[in-house]
Amino acid sequence: MLKDLTRKSRSYRRFDNSVAIPMATLEDLVDLAGICPSAGNKQPLRFILSTSPQDNEVIFDCLKWAAYLKDWDGPTPSERPSAYIVMLNTAKDWDFAKFDLGIMAQTMMLGAVEKGLGGCMVGAIDRDRLRAHLSLPPELEISLVLALGKPAEDVRIVDMPADGSVKYYRDEAGVHYVPKRGSGELVLQKLEK
Amino acid sequence: MLKDLTRKSRSYRRFDNSVAIPMATLEDLVDLAGICPSAGNKQPLRFILSTSPQDNEVIFDCLKWAAYLKDWDGPTPSERPSAYIVMLNTAKDWDFAKFDLGIMAQTMMLGAVEKGLGGCMVGAIDRDRLRAHLSLPPELEISLVLALGKPAEDVRIVDMPADGSVKYYRDEAGVHYVPKRGSGELVLQKLEK
Repeated sequence: MLKDLTRKSRSYRRFDNSVAIPMATLEDLVDLAGICPSAGNKQPLRFILSTSPQDNEVIFDCLKWAAYLKDWDGPTPSERPSAYIVMLNTAKDWDFAKFDLGIMAQTMMLGAVEKGLGGCMVGAIDRDRLRAHLSLPPELEISLVLALGKPAEDVRIVDMPADGSVKYYRDEAGVHYVPKRGSGELVLQKLEK
Repeated sequence: MLKDLTRKSRSYRRFDNSVAIPMATLEDLVDLAGICPSAGNKQPLRFILSTSPQDNEVIFDCLKWAAYLKDWDGPTPSERPSAYIVMLNTAKDWDFAKFDLGIMAQTMMLGAVEKGLGGCMVGAIDRDRLRAHLSLPPELEISLVLALGKPAEDVRIVDMPADGSVKYYRDEAGVHYVPKRGSGELVLQKLEK
């Protein structure tokens, strides 16, 4: 079951923008994040939730999409995310905050997929502009933006190519391919006996 | 479903060491990690899997347990983990490796819980000793150890105490309590309309 969910939880960048996401859905995802493990149980992360078309437009304009797809300008208005979760860090000097960030982001994304949604964890952010729009105090670091919507693209995991390139790519039909390392490459030692 | 799994996926530190974990179980968890999203799709993490009692003993001796429980010396031999996944980083200078670490560690832990197991993500490691035991080359960083077993303790999420302390604690019966922030504290803004 979790394997199915994990497999479906791809990084989606094109959505059906006509499908709205209720605020209650984002709240459910935050409830999941709230019961995740946290390094030293410090729980330094905070959230801003947006389902507002006006705010979504500003947040969208602060994000850069799909660094490896040089010929793509990002999702068109009808393909854009319907909601965002802005993840903020209250502990800039805590080395494990980024670890917590991965734990929570992944858990919320799996939760979104379980609800028939999907999204993308976006780290390429115009932080100054987003900070100004959200009126954030300087001590809050903008860590990540989760873009969420009803996926409207086909994203597939494929084996790593012979040249070892990790770059995802699309074919002419727009299918998006993500090369993943096999377990033969990931596992360095098996200690038994 | 995922909420139930996430809630059950606590940091367990006492196990039934008589329950062995097959190598195939660890391989299943690595398969889950292999299909997780990865920042820039770089997939810099690697794994060493141990179900070997001899190696487990050395790995155990390299770990420090439960920083907040000053009066507890860690799990007794019969309470120790049955298996370990050592998570290694091939990209020390890649700032997002720790983010990937959180994504993968959490996904593998959820997978372990789905299999009736549980564990603890341990970051307090005697890295020099573990590196020597595993004969690791200097370019591989020891990021984290996942300790896994059949949980043999009751771990419960509770509301944050009035003093805001994040320290987990145990009662006289040995029940382990983990204070978690509520959504009222986690969510700073809700943008609707």
